[in-house]
Amino acid sequence: MNDKIIKKRINAIGLRLKKKKIDCLIVTRPANVTFTTGFSGGDSWAVIAPRRLYLLTDSRYTEQAQKECPSCKIIERTSPMARTAAKLIKKLKSVQITAIEKSASLAVFGQLKKNLKTRIKTVANIIEQVRSSKDESEIAAIKKAAQIAAKALKETLPIIKPGITENELAGRLDFQIRRLGAINSFETIVAFGPNASRPHHQPAGRKLKKNDTILIDFGARYKNYCSDLTRCFVTGRPSAFYKKVYEAVEQAQAAAIKMVRAGVEITKVDTAARQVIAKYDLPVYGHGTGHGLGLEIHEEPVVAAKGKGKLKAGEIITIEPGVYMPGKLGVRIEDDVLVTETGCKILSSDCPHLPLLRSLKR
Amino acid sequence: MNDKIIKKRINAIGLRLKKKKIDCLIVTRPANVTFTTGFSGGDSWAVIAPRRLYLLTDSRYTEQAQKECPSCKIIERTSPMARTAAKLIKKLKSVQITAIEKSASLAVFGQLKKNLKTRIKTVANIIEQVRSSKDESEIAAIKKAAQIAAKALKETLPIIKPGITENELAGRLDFQIRRLGAINSFETIVAFGPNASRPHHQPAGRKLKKNDTILIDFGARYKNYCSDLTRCFVTGRPSAFYKKVYEAVEQAQAAAIKMVRAGVEITKVDTAARQVIAKYDLPVYGHGTGHGLGLEIHEEPVVAAKGKGKLKAGEIITIEPGVYMPGKLGVRIEDDVLVTETGCKILSSDCPHLPLLRSLKR
Repeated sequence: MNDKIIKKRINAIGLRLKKKKIDCLIVTRPANVTFTTGFSGGDSWAVIAPRRLYLLTDSRYTEQAQKECPSCKIIERTSPMARTAAKLIKKLKSVQITAIEKSASLAVFGQLKKNLKTRIKTVANIIEQVRSSKDESEIAAIKKAAQIAAKALKETLPIIKPGITENELAGRLDFQIRRLGAINSFETIVAFGPNASRPHHQPAGRKLKKNDTILIDFGARYKNYCSDLTRCFVTGRPSAFYKKVYEAVEQAQAAAIKMVRAGVEITKVDTAARQVIAKYDLPVYGHGTGHGLGLEIHEEPVVAAKGKGKLKAGEIITIEPGVYMPGKLGVRIEDDVLVTETGCKILSSDCPHLPLLRSLKR
Repeated sequence: MNDKIIKKRINAIGLRLKKKKIDCLIVTRPANVTFTTGFSGGDSWAVIAPRRLYLLTDSRYTEQAQKECPSCKIIERTSPMARTAAKLIKKLKSVQITAIEKSASLAVFGQLKKNLKTRIKTVANIIEQVRSSKDESEIAAIKKAAQIAAKALKETLPIIKPGITENELAGRLDFQIRRLGAINSFETIVAFGPNASRPHHQPAGRKLKKNDTILIDFGARYKNYCSDLTRCFVTGRPSAFYKKVYEAVEQAQAAAIKMVRAGVEITKVDTAARQVIAKYDLPVYGHGTGHGLGLEIHEEPVVAAKGKGKLKAGEIITIEPGVYMPGKLGVRIEDDVLVTETGCKILSSDCPHLPLLRSLKR
């Protein structure tokens, strides 16, 4: 990772630490470690100390860490993480107050307390706040992740024929994502027919019928950044009721997207979508209208009825209203949207929408 | 999940809770939630109360939870998890001491403390201990997960030809796993040539050469249970040095497997493998010799130089020594092994070993 980008991030975090009189922050949340160091492997912590940035990892990852993290001093641990971190911090004489992220476990906190001689504070959302507005390289990565997902879906469409199982369709789509140089950002959801009423249905052996409906919720992870998309379409003739539901969800999504702009109350975006579904006299979905997207598939901000605060420029969120009727159907449409000062940019616009409904008729 | 199996597990956990005078346990670790309830979806906690077992989840998963968890009362949360759990426990008059797992985050603990009126204890490894020895249904699932992985590799072999990228090979293998009704138990590692010196290399665009070496570390997750396998082979003619290294790793693995038996000190298994590598005058690997395998890809016991205690019957562990020489090569061989009273059973024996070295010559 570019040293300049890392320095900018560490400076922004450093200012927040200074305000809280924290000398040293132990970073344990994987996405926060990636954000502060550029490291994309596993089993790693970062230590943001007054004069230096450290990456702690084990021997399986040392070679990778040296390649990915020119800004960091790499510490190869041979004892548990907490003990390694404590040992390191003990040597840093300027550190009087150490902080640990509240996302760390009680077990880790206990080990640190036993081994550290400095005062320990707990902090939340320091790095998450810096992460929430994306810089240009991050926006480019997420856009590319959305493009790869879109392309993967397009290349999978020709093999969607009656008889294919949910499982095979998911596997084929995943393969295209891999082939295009990315990995899944989460486990692909493919749901045929009424299976789609479970928003997080696990694909299984259900076969596609001649007249059937398909929901695919999927995403690519490219250069550590996630995209997250949902598309619905039908084989054969859609029923009048399915058409109505699809239209409602489409309208709900459009209404929410129209509201997206820096400075807008998050709850207003959420309400805009729900009102449309209610107006159509359909059951209003129980999940949020969307969520932040970045190094993690779910991150700040939460776009929901209980969402807090206002949207900020540079945030990237999903907009994904749905309608679910157990035993009957499920429809959800999801796109990835960049918040700007004047409105928003849809990063996933390459991914085909409603027209699919026609092109798949056979 | 079968009500009888769940009851047996809850009884075993209940006995341990009673000893610690705990009335009610809040289960937050995902694999522990699956183990105690049978639920395989996301965003869920279990509450093991004196008279009832509860599953807390959100509306995206309610339908799935009702299907998977006949032993549980399902609570659909509309407020944060910790508040929902606190509200539930407040209503249970017999609860005076509640416990939370130490794997829970500091943030969750803080929220619980604010909302719960009972005393709160923290506990570690209660459920993990019950989980470590597998019952028959678990052994069968892991065995099947290993068989699926083996079959997927066999079906991928014919497409391994010079020119294929690490990425494409990983994608093809993943597809076979999907097609066979499972998913990946972790992100597949495919490393060509010297890339294999990074034990957790991320597959990329590197193309396979005519004379090349391949390391594949992969696994299937079947009915929530993981397998974890590593195979190495060559295209073209292996160098004398590669052959020597391969032989050393093979011998090291055999030496460790020979040691596996209920009652054996874990460190003895670890040492057996390392001694062989050292005898061959090759660099001894920095990672552990193996790890427990089950609902999680890494679980108890840790088979390493600092591993504690003795192996127990019913535990399933990996045995995976390796040799890594940055810029040169990496070789690792990994199998999944069931600990029995008299020795062990290799669950991954369907997966072809050394012969590959020949069959892939071209």
